[in-house]
Amino acid sequence: MRLAELSARSGVSTATIKYYLREGLLHPGRRITVTQAEYDEEHLRRLRLVRALIQVGRIPVNSAREVLAALQEEDLDRNRRLGVAVWALPHGPAPDESDPATEAARRTAGQLLDRLGWNHCGASGDTPTAPAYDMLVTAIVALSRLGYPCALEDLEPYARAMQRIAVTDLDVVERYETPDEQVEAAVALTVLYEPVLLSLRRLAEAEESRRRFGGK
Amino acid sequence: MRLAELSARSGVSTATIKYYLREGLLHPGRRITVTQAEYDEEHLRRLRLVRALIQVGRIPVNSAREVLAALQEEDLDRNRRLGVAVWALPHGPAPDESDPATEAARRTAGQLLDRLGWNHCGASGDTPTAPAYDMLVTAIVALSRLGYPCALEDLEPYARAMQRIAVTDLDVVERYETPDEQVEAAVALTVLYEPVLLSLRRLAEAEESRRRFGGK
Repeated sequence: MRLAELSARSGVSTATIKYYLREGLLHPGRRITVTQAEYDEEHLRRLRLVRALIQVGRIPVNSAREVLAALQEEDLDRNRRLGVAVWALPHGPAPDESDPATEAARRTAGQLLDRLGWNHCGASGDTPTAPAYDMLVTAIVALSRLGYPCALEDLEPYARAMQRIAVTDLDVVERYETPDEQVEAAVALTVLYEPVLLSLRRLAEAEESRRRFGGK
Repeated sequence: MRLAELSARSGVSTATIKYYLREGLLHPGRRITVTQAEYDEEHLRRLRLVRALIQVGRIPVNSAREVLAALQEEDLDRNRRLGVAVWALPHGPAPDESDPATEAARRTAGQLLDRLGWNHCGASGDTPTAPAYDMLVTAIVALSRLGYPCALEDLEPYARAMQRIAVTDLDVVERYETPDEQVEAAVALTVLYEPVLLSLRRLAEAEESRRRFGGK
């Protein structure tokens, strides 16, 4: 298909598609004349993922480029491509290593992962630390500095709930046929389901609060 | 205590405390001389919440002021104060009502809440719509526009998981003694546990992916 059709089918303006092409977020079409190129279903799929990352997830262009590069590492297996792509997502500020609370938070996070049997997240040993692990440590430091509950026992029920969520997440991913589509869906759904989860939590809290404290 | 002690005990600089006082995020201390004021434990507690909202939650000062105002509505019961305070938190962009996908998303969200028996979230009837409900609708629109799963059956397992999370959340809130402290904790923990949940989900996904797709 031509650029105009790619734009119509994706709902992304031709100007934005050209911008994504210039930024390397979308691979070039097959040149047919000096000024025209031909695009295919893979462009359409990739464009969908780019929109999920940039327009919905508000992920900076540089990070999005890293995520997309990771998806294309053909010599990695599906699990590693998925891991590398999710690692490239933004994870917020890194923990402040000069803060003594960071060491304590690392200990708590490590114990939590041990207890769950999540021993492959790079939390220890010679593998690099997963950015989501650092994100967890930063969150525990914030809780502990402000004196809110953040002991192993406080965090465990949340981790167990996320374990069940991850099973649902991967079930959705496995509905897609090819490993390429699966890895793309995993990254998109990680990002797109975050506001779903946070809004449902706030609604569930309102409901639970009404049940416990509510008058009429 | 004097300003210097409030600063030392809270870990917030005196300049920042003065800024919070000017912005009305912290109520004035009891004047003892023209230049000095006396602060108490309630200032310390409030300062902790302000830091949770602004420094950790990155909530704009105006929204934080609204949240704090809601906490002080003494004529509301605990459930309503909690609701009003959480409603004042930022919830991202409102749904685009001119988009036909929004109507379909509202229908899905409404069916989901019906199925869960969450009938008090302002999703229908004459009560105003909860901002978390609009946040959910916006998220469903984004999923549907990009062709990702967002039917009632896709969303339900996430809602059930958040229902369990909300029970844990409110159990933590009930550890605090007074209604004032409980409402403050509910707001702070809504914000502070969001990065905990999102990071744990990413770690759990990595673990589940390794289990299903992982090689060595």
